This record gives sequence, structure tokens and C-alpha cells, in this order.
Amino acid sequence: MNQLQNASCPFCREDVQAGHFAASENFLAIYNLAPILPGHSLVIPRRHILSLMELGDPELCELTLFSRDIVKVLQKAFGSRSFDWTIQEGVEAGQTIPHLHLHLIPRVEGDLPQPGDWYPLLEQSESEIIDSAARPKLTESEMQAIVIKLRNMVEEVLAQ
Amino acid sequence: MNQLQNASCPFCREDVQAGHFAASENFLAIYNLAPILPGHSLVIPRRHILSLMELGDPELCELTLFSRDIVKVLQKAFGSRSFDWTIQEGVEAGQTIPHLHLHLIPRVEGDLPQPGDWYPLLEQSESEIIDSAARPKLTESEMQAIVIKLRNMVEEVLAQ
Repeated sequence: MNQLQNASCPFCREDVQAGHFAASENFLAIYNLAPILPGHSLVIPRRHILSLMELGDPELCELTLFSRDIVKVLQKAFGSRSFDWTIQEGVEAGQTIPHLHLHLIPRVEGDLPQPGDWYPLLEQSESEIIDSAARPKLTESEMQAIVIKLRNMVEEVLAQ
Repeated sequence: MNQLQNASCPFCREDVQAGHFAASENFLAIYNLAPILPGHSLVIPRRHILSLMELGDPELCELTLFSRDIVKVLQKAFGSRSFDWTIQEGVEAGQTIPHLHLHLIPRVEGDLPQPGDWYPLLEQSESEIIDSAARPKLTESEMQAIVIKLRNMVEEVLAQ
């Protein structure tokens, strides 16, 4: 935790940031501890900022290019061609953790009764803080296994 | 309509593209003919492509930087601090019009009973083709008024 981070923010936590499966200069890709579907990941800035407006132009490009690479990794890892890519910025838009985060969710046929059913799940997920005891979470070993798989996949996909 | 466009695609239609309220080299911002909330706009590439993967790196940066500018315009025009920013790519993710489009929706307090209620509306909206007679649409003069307002706002906001 350094001065650019916030002690009460779950996305600034050292163990959360250290558990990333891919990194760029200013951003990390982390696997969601309580994924709403297999592959549900988040891209976050390393430092504690709330808003897309706080990124300089080169950083905003970096976020987008990095996130597209992460989509490729998730598509390969989860056998998917499709994805949801969403930012909810500000309380009025449903943002509950005040640290910028882009949701990336690879999608496959029949993963939900209707393609759009991911959103109510996301909403429910957003309304429960990442370290809430009430939220169903992956076990430590499940999380470790998926992060190792994705780290290997990153090397494979991004080397192409 | 040129060879990079698709005759059966609503987002390639000349009148739809000509009705943009802001433009960059390769992208257009259009107001949704059937907005799910005031300000609901779309950023689309001028040419007919399905996927984010078809954009070169500079184009992907252009899309993101342009879209952030559009958010600023929408925030100013609709008195908002918050927004939803979402791409659904591929049929499995809920994409119904096979022309890449980013939804930008400015949000204000109390605009919906719950912040996340925009999504079912978006889903319903996506499932009805833009020129379907069944879909409630703005009248021509309502559309014209909002586009003129936004065009003026673009000059004001982006000159800053």
C-alpha cells in the first residue's frame, strides 16, 4: 500500500493486487473473487482513482488496449467468442466500490437463460463488498488454480 | 452508403449516420432513436464492423478518447456526474445489431428505482431493431431538437 492507494479500498489491498493474472504499467487484471460467470474479471488501475476522467489520454489508451488483450485471454481460457465490457461510473450508475473498474465477462451459448441475465447478477454482485462474509466466494485454492491457468494463458495468447 | 457499409444494417444507413451529433475520423456519436433514459447515445464506427477485435490499436484509442469526450458532452447536457459505458459483443453477450456499438448513458439520482434498472431496459431495447415499427421512438422534431442541442454542446465542451 503506497500513498496513491486507499487503506479502506478492497481494490487497493496488497493481496488483491498481488493476485493479478496480468499487468500493464498502470493497470492490473484480477479475477473476480465472486465471478457471476466463469471468467468474470476486472481491470483496475493500480492507484486509487474513482473516475475515467482522472486518466490522462495515454493511460486511457493503455487501459483499453490492455483490456482488449485480457478479453483475448479470457476468450481462449473459457472457449468464448463473445463478451460483456462495462463500466458503471458514479453512485447513480450503480458503482459501489469507488475505485475505477472495468468488468470483462466472456460469454458462451446458453451460459444464462437469456444473454442479458448477466446484468442483474452483476448488480447483485456489485452491491456486496468484495470482502463481505455474506458473498459466496471462490476458495483460496480455487482462486490460485484459476490465476495460475490465466497467467500461463497470458504468455501464450499475448506472444502471438 | 459505400463499400465499407452494409445495406441491411441500421447503423450503416445514410440518414442514421448523417444524424450524428459528433464525429471523429472513424467514429460517430448518434443519439438513440429510442433512448432508455435521457441522453442514451451510441458511439459507432463509420464502417460496418462487428467486433472490437477488428480495430487497429490507434483506432481503438480513438474510439475510447472520442467516447470519453462524448461522456463529457452528455454529462453537461443532462446534468449528470455518472454514466454507464457498455459493449455487448457477440450474440451470446446480447448483441443484436452486428455493427460495433458502445452504449453511453448519463445517469442522475433517482432516474430509475434502482441504479441497475437500466440494464433490463437496454436488453429490451436491443431486442428490437432500430427501425422496428413496434419500438417507441422519438418523433423527427424531437430528434432534431436534441441533436441540435448536442451539436452546440460539443463545440462548447470540447473547446474547453
